[in-house]
Amino acid sequence: MGKNCLVAQSGGPTTAINASLAGIINAAVQSTGIDKIYGALNGIQGVLNDALIPLNELFEMDQEKLLKLKFTPSMFLGSCRYKLAELESDSSDYDRICEIFKKYDISYFFYIGGNDSMDTVMKLSSYTKEKGMDVKVIGCPKTVDNDLKCTDHTPGYGSAAKYIAASMLEIAHDTSIYDMQTVVIVEIMGRNAGWLTAAAALARNEYNQAPHLIYLPERIFETEKFVSDVKKKLKEHKHVIIAVSEGIKDEDDEYISAQGTKTDKFGHAILSGTGKALEDIVKLRIGCKVRSIELNVLQRSAAHISSATDVEEAFLLGEKTVELGVTGSTGVMTVCRRTCDDPYQVVFESACIEDVANFEKKIPESWITEEGNDVTDSILCYMRPLILGEIALNYKNGIPDYQSFEHLYKRG
Amino acid sequence: MGKNCLVAQSGGPTTAINASLAGIINAAVQSTGIDKIYGALNGIQGVLNDALIPLNELFEMDQEKLLKLKFTPSMFLGSCRYKLAELESDSSDYDRICEIFKKYDISYFFYIGGNDSMDTVMKLSSYTKEKGMDVKVIGCPKTVDNDLKCTDHTPGYGSAAKYIAASMLEIAHDTSIYDMQTVVIVEIMGRNAGWLTAAAALARNEYNQAPHLIYLPERIFETEKFVSDVKKKLKEHKHVIIAVSEGIKDEDDEYISAQGTKTDKFGHAILSGTGKALEDIVKLRIGCKVRSIELNVLQRSAAHISSATDVEEAFLLGEKTVELGVTGSTGVMTVCRRTCDDPYQVVFESACIEDVANFEKKIPESWITEEGNDVTDSILCYMRPLILGEIALNYKNGIPDYQSFEHLYKRG
Repeated sequence: MGKNCLVAQSGGPTTAINASLAGIINAAVQSTGIDKIYGALNGIQGVLNDALIPLNELFEMDQEKLLKLKFTPSMFLGSCRYKLAELESDSSDYDRICEIFKKYDISYFFYIGGNDSMDTVMKLSSYTKEKGMDVKVIGCPKTVDNDLKCTDHTPGYGSAAKYIAASMLEIAHDTSIYDMQTVVIVEIMGRNAGWLTAAAALARNEYNQAPHLIYLPERIFETEKFVSDVKKKLKEHKHVIIAVSEGIKDEDDEYISAQGTKTDKFGHAILSGTGKALEDIVKLRIGCKVRSIELNVLQRSAAHISSATDVEEAFLLGEKTVELGVTGSTGVMTVCRRTCDDPYQVVFESACIEDVANFEKKIPESWITEEGNDVTDSILCYMRPLILGEIALNYKNGIPDYQSFEHLYKRG
Repeated sequence: MGKNCLVAQSGGPTTAINASLAGIINAAVQSTGIDKIYGALNGIQGVLNDALIPLNELFEMDQEKLLKLKFTPSMFLGSCRYKLAELESDSSDYDRICEIFKKYDISYFFYIGGNDSMDTVMKLSSYTKEKGMDVKVIGCPKTVDNDLKCTDHTPGYGSAAKYIAASMLEIAHDTSIYDMQTVVIVEIMGRNAGWLTAAAALARNEYNQAPHLIYLPERIFETEKFVSDVKKKLKEHKHVIIAVSEGIKDEDDEYISAQGTKTDKFGHAILSGTGKALEDIVKLRIGCKVRSIELNVLQRSAAHISSATDVEEAFLLGEKTVELGVTGSTGVMTVCRRTCDDPYQVVFESACIEDVANFEKKIPESWITEEGNDVTDSILCYMRPLILGEIALNYKNGIPDYQSFEHLYKRG
């Protein structure tokens, strides 16, 4: 009897996480070291609940279906936000997971996710090693936030960045038509790291200077400086377009949000209304026409404008994840290392999971302007290659032809 | 000396209005009856301000540039929201416009716009006829709202509908991943007519039933009915996704908006916050996880996902507009008449401007379900052909390669 592998997805959606799943399935099907491929529904919770589905039958013989999966946004296997307890305080989850691993003869567990998911990889790989179990536990990165350490960038980020840049350009076109002073505020995802908001700068081209101002969570937001920035820009431009991270905070470490904040299970703040808050400031203090736009979940799910570079890399990282497993690695995450900016080149390697889990990578200080209201050319050189290329998506009846998510509901 | 033509754009942006401009330029360049082609910046205000730019030099010899213009969102010539006074009360605008017509030897005035713009076409064509001037005044339709009479549909609507349907599908994918009851409310443009919101139903396919509920301004919105609708759907589906028009009103004819309303110069209400208002109702009355998403200006400006059918028809309507002018028509608007649903076929004709100006076409009662929370199959048959086909857009540095709007700022 051969060895089996189990794959699951966790955290927030991206448009490239299914490409990594497709890469894992593709490599596992081809690997002589792997027999059956299982998927756990809703991440590690699906393992705990014994909610596994066989993936061989679904995809093995059907390259067209695998290609469709590669281009499909969000998470084919569903997600969870579940953090394993510390082993010392409660081992029941660990025991249960190992029971499931035994039941299905799992030799490889591949977990696709972000910081929190890598915490699970770290804890599980350490536990299986300790117990002397022959199970390789490997993380495959994904997050639109681009805030994972040890990797040049994260799958999902490039596509979100492409959507944000294209949308910012289209918002600039939309704003250009009236002959009156206008301020437009575009609120972009990012609690603690401004990578997504910085991507709005990729909308600048020969004729478009928007966004004219960029506010990132890496810098303290000062209302007075903001008002003076906007007034200054309005002297130079009839229309001033501003990109702002949802997570900007004032000097008292309070979120600039009109609605106050709540927190999710991980203690992360759930934010909304930052754009509205800035809209109110402009209305009150400057008084010109102002509008705020929240890009909302579309920036992480609009796969119709995915970056081909991003999707292809996500697929290859999935394949690399399997390769690491079958060659004996455990307790690692696959990473991208950039070897050249121009022409852009990356190699795929691995990093110790302890160096990745629970850390957040922010934008380096030197990539933000001294005034703190824009980014420098260096970050543009870094970001640009990640959004290049368009995917060859099929359409059916005028809408994208994605892989069904129906199986997520079958269990009621 | 030949006869010259003048073209201008007015009202809100769409992703197809520049395709109509490209069609007008293309036909005018080829027409032996037309010498120079002028564009007025910012609609009829540009005529009043003598802000005309020559378009021959820009596009005549450059088919590639014309193709780029065809795919570019928003309005190359800028826009205005300016309504001519009634002639009896103040003739100064009329005198000024005719002065400009004479100065530039204008024999044809083509105005691309919606209901309000057609009011200008009606007044001007009536005035020039009365004065015995040899100036043909012709309207070319555009509006994402699809609310113009006498035409099967309006250019701009199909592309907005395609964006809305694709985004709704992507939102459904995004929502599908967590194993918990969730309500998502998607706020879509449309003050008085629900055409754009109805287009969300085009997201339904073999596996996706979202949107599960649709609320249109054609029906009175009742909070109690809404709460019971959502509760019922939550019994059938883990995730309930709702499409709602910004313009829904209660039985007292008041907008369902969290923020109250303001009005623009035409007395149209400026709306925002309808989605938020419904979010609050769900939070308070049902208490499950709820999120609201406002598609905002991207639904009218995201040309990267324009409908090829829409853009091509907009171009052909532009060409038809010129043809009508040179063959002697005035006081008309070009229209689409559908001759067959399957296969979809249209012909381009003209309608009396008096039958179009200042009217709003709403969704027929029979295309809305009896319960008033969904649309029927008939409207799907009507809408589907309009979103078919994808445009062959060029990308440069990872973002769409559109025509510059820089000239709009050159005048300071």
